[in-house]
Amino acid sequence: MFRNTMPRYEVLSEDAMATLDGGWRRLMSEVGVEFMDERALDLFRKAGQKVEGNAVFLDPDFVLEQVAKAPAEFDLQARNPDNNVHIGGDAMAFSAVYGPPFVREGDVRRDGTMDDFRNFARLAQGFSVLDSAGGVVTEPNDAPLDSRHLDMTYALQTLTDKVYMGNVVSGVNAADTIAMTEILFGSREAIEETPALISLINCNSPLRWDDRMLEAQFEYTSANQPVVLTPFIMMGAMSPVTIPAALVQQITEALSGIALSQLIRPGAPVVFGSFLTNIDMQSGSPTFGTPESGIGLLCTGQIARHFNLPFRTGGGLTSSQVPDAQAGYEALMTLMPTFLAGANWVMHSAGWLEGGLVAGFEKFVIDAQLVEMLQHEFTPMEIDEASLAFDAHQEVGHGGHFLGAMHTMERFRTCFYRPFLNSSDNYERWMRNGAKDTATRAGEIYKKRLEEYEAPPIDDAIREELEAYVTRRRAELGD
Amino acid sequence: MFRNTMPRYEVLSEDAMATLDGGWRRLMSEVGVEFMDERALDLFRKAGQKVEGNAVFLDPDFVLEQVAKAPAEFDLQARNPDNNVHIGGDAMAFSAVYGPPFVREGDVRRDGTMDDFRNFARLAQGFSVLDSAGGVVTEPNDAPLDSRHLDMTYALQTLTDKVYMGNVVSGVNAADTIAMTEILFGSREAIEETPALISLINCNSPLRWDDRMLEAQFEYTSANQPVVLTPFIMMGAMSPVTIPAALVQQITEALSGIALSQLIRPGAPVVFGSFLTNIDMQSGSPTFGTPESGIGLLCTGQIARHFNLPFRTGGGLTSSQVPDAQAGYEALMTLMPTFLAGANWVMHSAGWLEGGLVAGFEKFVIDAQLVEMLQHEFTPMEIDEASLAFDAHQEVGHGGHFLGAMHTMERFRTCFYRPFLNSSDNYERWMRNGAKDTATRAGEIYKKRLEEYEAPPIDDAIREELEAYVTRRRAELGD
Repeated sequence: MFRNTMPRYEVLSEDAMATLDGGWRRLMSEVGVEFMDERALDLFRKAGQKVEGNAVFLDPDFVLEQVAKAPAEFDLQARNPDNNVHIGGDAMAFSAVYGPPFVREGDVRRDGTMDDFRNFARLAQGFSVLDSAGGVVTEPNDAPLDSRHLDMTYALQTLTDKVYMGNVVSGVNAADTIAMTEILFGSREAIEETPALISLINCNSPLRWDDRMLEAQFEYTSANQPVVLTPFIMMGAMSPVTIPAALVQQITEALSGIALSQLIRPGAPVVFGSFLTNIDMQSGSPTFGTPESGIGLLCTGQIARHFNLPFRTGGGLTSSQVPDAQAGYEALMTLMPTFLAGANWVMHSAGWLEGGLVAGFEKFVIDAQLVEMLQHEFTPMEIDEASLAFDAHQEVGHGGHFLGAMHTMERFRTCFYRPFLNSSDNYERWMRNGAKDTATRAGEIYKKRLEEYEAPPIDDAIREELEAYVTRRRAELGD
Repeated sequence: MFRNTMPRYEVLSEDAMATLDGGWRRLMSEVGVEFMDERALDLFRKAGQKVEGNAVFLDPDFVLEQVAKAPAEFDLQARNPDNNVHIGGDAMAFSAVYGPPFVREGDVRRDGTMDDFRNFARLAQGFSVLDSAGGVVTEPNDAPLDSRHLDMTYALQTLTDKVYMGNVVSGVNAADTIAMTEILFGSREAIEETPALISLINCNSPLRWDDRMLEAQFEYTSANQPVVLTPFIMMGAMSPVTIPAALVQQITEALSGIALSQLIRPGAPVVFGSFLTNIDMQSGSPTFGTPESGIGLLCTGQIARHFNLPFRTGGGLTSSQVPDAQAGYEALMTLMPTFLAGANWVMHSAGWLEGGLVAGFEKFVIDAQLVEMLQHEFTPMEIDEASLAFDAHQEVGHGGHFLGAMHTMERFRTCFYRPFLNSSDNYERWMRNGAKDTATRAGEIYKKRLEEYEAPPIDDAIREELEAYVTRRRAELGD
């Protein structure tokens, strides 16, 4: 997996950090956070925190004591050990888009299906820059509602041998996902020892954790599986319109959820989550790749390090409806700060289109290209005497060229990163080859990747056990 | 103009800088640099440097003494004082694409014309993020060859009231440009006092300064007009294939040209130039927005600061043939590091397409959008108690929304940057409005801007004097 050993780009001064620190302490203790779950309220009450209705008024120092129990880094195992992931420190793990109800291929935009889900899982398996297909890479609208979490989990387990994300629609779904993961990895002990599932728990921002998300959090955290506690903030709607206010709210929400996790199971792995952008104040539409979200992202990294927590943010976000210029630059407007901040768990790394409503096949390829380019850009170069190539200068002299120099001949195959999507063909050649724009080429690439796809081998007995589980539970759930 | 007061992103360690320092000293003194101009060789000889044929073997400490005479920052005056530019420090000035023989509008790619040149100049005047139309915004292929520098200069002087770049095809052209600038600003003294022209002097990399460029440099530097001394390096062709070698070569070339400028006129303003990317080692094509060029760009900023010189690099570069996703993300792959490095003079900020062979009208709009977004992103936010919006949280409470909060109502018009090109329309609305992709919208915008264009007022007497100069010189040049 990728490790980002380049410097971090930090924009908050010590004074700024102190102001934010004062801000979340006040918000946490005076406005408090709602938890729509009796078990959560009980845990806080027993820990001596003030509870009124569903609102918990947390003592900031108590929160920090809980946060300190969470590991700064942890491992996540895949069924293929080569695809194990480390979360935290300088490690960066990338997973595909999560949640879109629609898909786009070429000019067609339509409801996502289970077939689409499987194809995206296959693509995620095939692109080496992706550490995971994620979870709901598209919503499979043609699969029965109550049991589709079984179909999705089974697809992620069998079509990929990378880590995957857990279903969070309800506590029941979470329990199913854990049970299927126990089957895949042999036992509950095996996955409690080294976690094998990571799950996204979104806050109903501002300042409320909803019942179903909390049910799922209880399941996963009890099983020692990491949860990504994510304030879901579109500034102007779910938070005030100023970035500092959004950051303070984000800290309050994330730390309150992390405190709960440590009451459920001290030492359980968590990720400081962030999904932070702003709306267009004229139309109310969410916007992505904005200057404000870029700054928020950089600040988030610095804040998470301040609390010694691994963090999730970033991705290839865009508002664009199609994989055009805007889609390309908005995705990079988020992905570049993602690398500058050194985000540890990067969701929506590939395929995000139209504000997250659409999983785009062409966009998936474009984003994979961007992540691969950035991984090369954020790999430190070696600077030593040999790299200065003094001999090559003596060989070539003034006004010559280096194409045939010995130094070049020895290195030309590997010296530069070679993109798989970008075209640098001259105009005549590009015309001869059909004058294909980037989206067209990306369309050819994903189709070829799907043709070339080979399913990673899986033990027959395990596959049968997983199938039996799905069949039994589907019947029990009435689908 | 824009000032970048955000932190610089620096990737070179002290050790790395010391290695590069040893590298350029050796290259400068042992391989040397060729100057294809007798006056230049004479100046170096008289200053005690070793000259053999056209090669000058420069003493590195002598070079640094010369470099120290160059100002770290300087002003450049425009005929409208509101458009004066500062070069150096935290100032960043942006100019349009420079040099393309072709233009693209929509699906049409064709030879650039004087009409195209004028239209690009009008666009540069209209977009406030651009400080200059630059120089050869497209090559006006329908204008007579020997006198087209007069037409271009006249267009830049009259259609814009921003700073502009000087012609460098020959010493004669440079002298004409200076003479026309003297007319515009009233006298030679006026422009020697505060420079009014900036010119691009490219190195014939590796390690050779050609005769015509040097002729132009002599004219401009003698007149105290800044020159941007720019190694033109496509790694693999004009330099070895390793980034450190390219950086060492770049330092050697730039500093040798700067040393010459200080021998011509001590204290004359200069800019440490960089045009640094790599070729595709399979096809030999130049590539842009690459990981290697991004790293090179970041290093260049750090190196220029090391020598206390203003620097030029960056822009909206791409290999793409059309304004598609690749054009968007490759442009940003260069523009984002341009801001992270804090480049002082940014050429090719708008309109660059197809490796610089094409000036694209749609791409011009896309790039202007990117620069404007980045200017907002690289503006530090205020973090104080008021920005934390505690009252808004008390007003809205848990799970509510901030759309109607007092804090929002007071700020909603200006709180977020609002792009002019990006679409965040929902799908239905976007379809209703014609399902226009970014390039299509960009096409509408540049046409509207051209319709709305108003020429900045100019004194009739000055205009007549400029016209008389052009008419007289055109006749003398035989066109």
